[in-house]
Amino acid sequence: MSKILKGIGASDGIAISKAYSLVEPDLNFTETSIDGSASADEVQKFKNGLHETKVEVTKIRNHAEETVGPEHAAIFEAHLMVLDDPEFIGPIEGKITGGLSAPQALVEVRDQYLKTFEEMDNEYMKERAADIKDVSKRLLAHLLGRALPDPASIDEEVIIIADDLTPSDTAQLDKRFVKGFVTNAGGRTSHSAIMARSLEIPAVVGTKEVTASVNDGDIVIVDGTAGDVIAGADEKEIKAYELKTDELKRERETLLELKDDDTKTQDGITVELGANIGTPDDVEGVLDNGAEGIGLFRTEFLYMGRDKLPTEDEQYEAYKTVLEKMDDKPVIVRTIDIGGDKEVPALDMPKELNPFLGYRAIRMALGNKELFRTQLRALLRASVHGNLKIMFPMIATIQEFEEAKALLIECRDELKADKVDVRDDIETGIMVEIPSAAILADEFAKVVDFFSIGTNDLIQYTFAADRMNENVSYLYQPYHPALLRLIDNVVKAAHREDKWVGMCGEMAGDPTAMPLLIGLGIDELSMSAGSVLKARSQIKNLKKTDMEHLVEAALRSPDSDTVTALVKEYTERL
Amino acid sequence: MSKILKGIGASDGIAISKAYSLVEPDLNFTETSIDGSASADEVQKFKNGLHETKVEVTKIRNHAEETVGPEHAAIFEAHLMVLDDPEFIGPIEGKITGGLSAPQALVEVRDQYLKTFEEMDNEYMKERAADIKDVSKRLLAHLLGRALPDPASIDEEVIIIADDLTPSDTAQLDKRFVKGFVTNAGGRTSHSAIMARSLEIPAVVGTKEVTASVNDGDIVIVDGTAGDVIAGADEKEIKAYELKTDELKRERETLLELKDDDTKTQDGITVELGANIGTPDDVEGVLDNGAEGIGLFRTEFLYMGRDKLPTEDEQYEAYKTVLEKMDDKPVIVRTIDIGGDKEVPALDMPKELNPFLGYRAIRMALGNKELFRTQLRALLRASVHGNLKIMFPMIATIQEFEEAKALLIECRDELKADKVDVRDDIETGIMVEIPSAAILADEFAKVVDFFSIGTNDLIQYTFAADRMNENVSYLYQPYHPALLRLIDNVVKAAHREDKWVGMCGEMAGDPTAMPLLIGLGIDELSMSAGSVLKARSQIKNLKKTDMEHLVEAALRSPDSDTVTALVKEYTERL
Repeated sequence: MSKILKGIGASDGIAISKAYSLVEPDLNFTETSIDGSASADEVQKFKNGLHETKVEVTKIRNHAEETVGPEHAAIFEAHLMVLDDPEFIGPIEGKITGGLSAPQALVEVRDQYLKTFEEMDNEYMKERAADIKDVSKRLLAHLLGRALPDPASIDEEVIIIADDLTPSDTAQLDKRFVKGFVTNAGGRTSHSAIMARSLEIPAVVGTKEVTASVNDGDIVIVDGTAGDVIAGADEKEIKAYELKTDELKRERETLLELKDDDTKTQDGITVELGANIGTPDDVEGVLDNGAEGIGLFRTEFLYMGRDKLPTEDEQYEAYKTVLEKMDDKPVIVRTIDIGGDKEVPALDMPKELNPFLGYRAIRMALGNKELFRTQLRALLRASVHGNLKIMFPMIATIQEFEEAKALLIECRDELKADKVDVRDDIETGIMVEIPSAAILADEFAKVVDFFSIGTNDLIQYTFAADRMNENVSYLYQPYHPALLRLIDNVVKAAHREDKWVGMCGEMAGDPTAMPLLIGLGIDELSMSAGSVLKARSQIKNLKKTDMEHLVEAALRSPDSDTVTALVKEYTERL
Repeated sequence: MSKILKGIGASDGIAISKAYSLVEPDLNFTETSIDGSASADEVQKFKNGLHETKVEVTKIRNHAEETVGPEHAAIFEAHLMVLDDPEFIGPIEGKITGGLSAPQALVEVRDQYLKTFEEMDNEYMKERAADIKDVSKRLLAHLLGRALPDPASIDEEVIIIADDLTPSDTAQLDKRFVKGFVTNAGGRTSHSAIMARSLEIPAVVGTKEVTASVNDGDIVIVDGTAGDVIAGADEKEIKAYELKTDELKRERETLLELKDDDTKTQDGITVELGANIGTPDDVEGVLDNGAEGIGLFRTEFLYMGRDKLPTEDEQYEAYKTVLEKMDDKPVIVRTIDIGGDKEVPALDMPKELNPFLGYRAIRMALGNKELFRTQLRALLRASVHGNLKIMFPMIATIQEFEEAKALLIECRDELKADKVDVRDDIETGIMVEIPSAAILADEFAKVVDFFSIGTNDLIQYTFAADRMNENVSYLYQPYHPALLRLIDNVVKAAHREDKWVGMCGEMAGDPTAMPLLIGLGIDELSMSAGSVLKARSQIKNLKKTDMEHLVEAALRSPDSDTVTALVKEYTERL
């Protein structure tokens, strides 16, 4: 008999394979005290274990860097730092010299840190506590001579079953063999869920009981879209899901026929569909999915998870690669957007009480002119290799834009003076993600070449609610008339000055938002590559004139629910 | 020869008096180790010192509560908690038992905590570190038998000179004798500056060298408005400043003639001037300064710095007191606005990554219905004693307002069913401090009775910048056209529905903003009581029709500088 478990769909798609239980070994041990003469040996034993652990973590980091990118590998840098931290290692060795066994000394020091950190009850410290917990477990396993499960050794197709996946675990997963995973714990924004989406493997989290319900080797079906897990699936169920998989595949194939089409509404209005990318490696996906350009190239990958700042040449190579691969299609590069929640070890950035309202993005770039110049020079040099547009993030005032633009022109003139080839027709625009910029769009439209609305932040500031904070996430309301009015204001202001408006937040790829965005007159939408073809197919069925009527009613609505009801009503009439 | 020191004017006014150096005693000591047999005595000695310190801190707290209010006394609760914390006291006693002297043990444990906290480099931890430092100093003084200076014992008029003033110091100042103070350290938002304004005594901070330049007993002039300090002032200078003081007094007397006047522009448009208060004690100042009502009664004093939540009766008494004292003048009570940076020990509130975008004010109230009901019931019961209006803070959506209003009606019906007298005509409005509410003001205007624009938060969210964060405080731009447009939208929307609009942020009392606000058509302005008469005098000189032209130009300006230039140009023509 099969059993259906309900969880939270964390990463789309269907996987059918046998279960691989990633169960932790028993790391309990009996405390034995060490007499004085043996403590030097015990310290040596500890040092050996420490060395082995460092070697292992370094391997995991390198593997993570290759498979999931430096952004996710950064956490192992943190682990290595713990293993190198004299404030962590010193006390352990002290306790061993004082007569404790190595495992006992480790556990005592670990618990001391965890207690201090957990009492502090703030997010940053919780993360540090998670690092210490994760790396101490690995070190303890080495000290006890018991190996942790080694997901990297999996060499046949499986679905991973676990209580929860630590960053170490997920970083070791090999996409060729791991077809999906299911955990007891976690939510849509938990680490394992984010990793699953980044690896593009189906996953269901938060099932509460998958480890109790599934045995090693059981056939399991994971429907990451619906959040369903079928444990011990029978022939019939497997058949049904295989059909469903085929159907998805056929749907995908139908969509692929649209790959080289223009994106046009029923009444012939063209919309440009771009994709968002985070590293040059993502360009393949952009091309495979028929995107017409890159609407958002995030450049943070150059800065994160590394000790040194990227050089001008290094950046130049990265930009050039993307521009060349994209041929003459537009590539909108967003300048450095770090600070806030994105930390950069190579920069000494202040810890802030409200990082989302803090010193980040353009604010930080204008305060670190050399850092910013390096990026601008690299971009200018790369401009000759394609169709580059430059976009400044977190612009709140016209002065900020003008200061950034002046620096760009200064860099351009310098390069030209040095006889370096630079394009003269690079469009420069801004992200509209701060209410002041949306409100004053008419004045901005006189000086920028384009706008790209960043809905994630714009919603967050418009409703004064951190969308990562569960207690106020109900205020993340993309369909709210207040937000639609801001967008409307930006589009109208831009068009009056013959400028174009894009959108690159999550909303841009949302099917419910689509009719509203078309009706509002957005010119370009940039989304995750996987959503591009679906969006093109949806837009082909929409009529802009109808959408305009829809939008008129939406702008006069009192709340999000009224707007979604209007969209639903319209969509059902199609 | 006198010497002029330049500092930061932290609290307005002029004081002339002799200097009183608040210099710390030398708390250095020579470490002596304690042999085993004596350690029990040393622990006892420590316990005695601890007890004396607690008694002293309790006294200071009580004194602070009486003189500067419970909000400022809260810090001493934190100190008492440190003194009662087994995680702080335990290790000290452990070290004494281990052979250290009590002072040495204290210093070692203190330093250990400070090191951990300071490394964390976040604001919350820095505050905790300051608490531990301050209270350890007091405890150390007791252990060494050296008394800390006792500002509470001052019994003649003086100006305090110090390196910096700790919360303990300022809480002990007696306004009858302390006429002003000057410090080496600090800025406008440092603790001592805030305390000076709250005590209404002139203060200059950040002079860097006052303790080096001034001797005990020197005659000192403090000009807290200009930020000037004259050390060793001569007859002539004293005379000059006495004249200046007289002039200020005369100005004040001229202003006082306006006390019972209406507030009207030259062309006869009435504006209502209210005052902001934080506790019932503040009402005297409101009446003395001729305010026409209370535009913002903050109710946080009921919740902060105490272990238990206030009962319904306790709240009822507080509201009743204010309403009765204000006779039939309007009193706008803002419901509970805690969370964010305002902590309440009696509530277990989550630490948040971005508290200003978090679970605070109405969000928290709607999530803690019993707490909210207690306040609403107390307000309803008090309503029969005056002209009460109720205002909900941090409203982002119409649903939030409707939910709060429904709860209010539910409470009213309950009270009526129990035959409790309740007024039926209580106006209920919202703070407009979140962009979404300002943008959707037309829809809100259909359901609320009034708006009060809270500029401090509204500016913060409109520009996505924490105004307490020095790195981005340049984005606190009250004259920016984006903000003015939001205000314009609110006023127009309200007036179309015959509703009135007030303002209760810092901007409401700002002379530069005044012409803009009058031109925008704001109906009510609520400010600190001390600013009311000046505002009335300024408004009498303004012509609303002229201001409307000014506003028209301001709304079409590209930035704050252009707007301030317009205001300046206009004001000079007056």
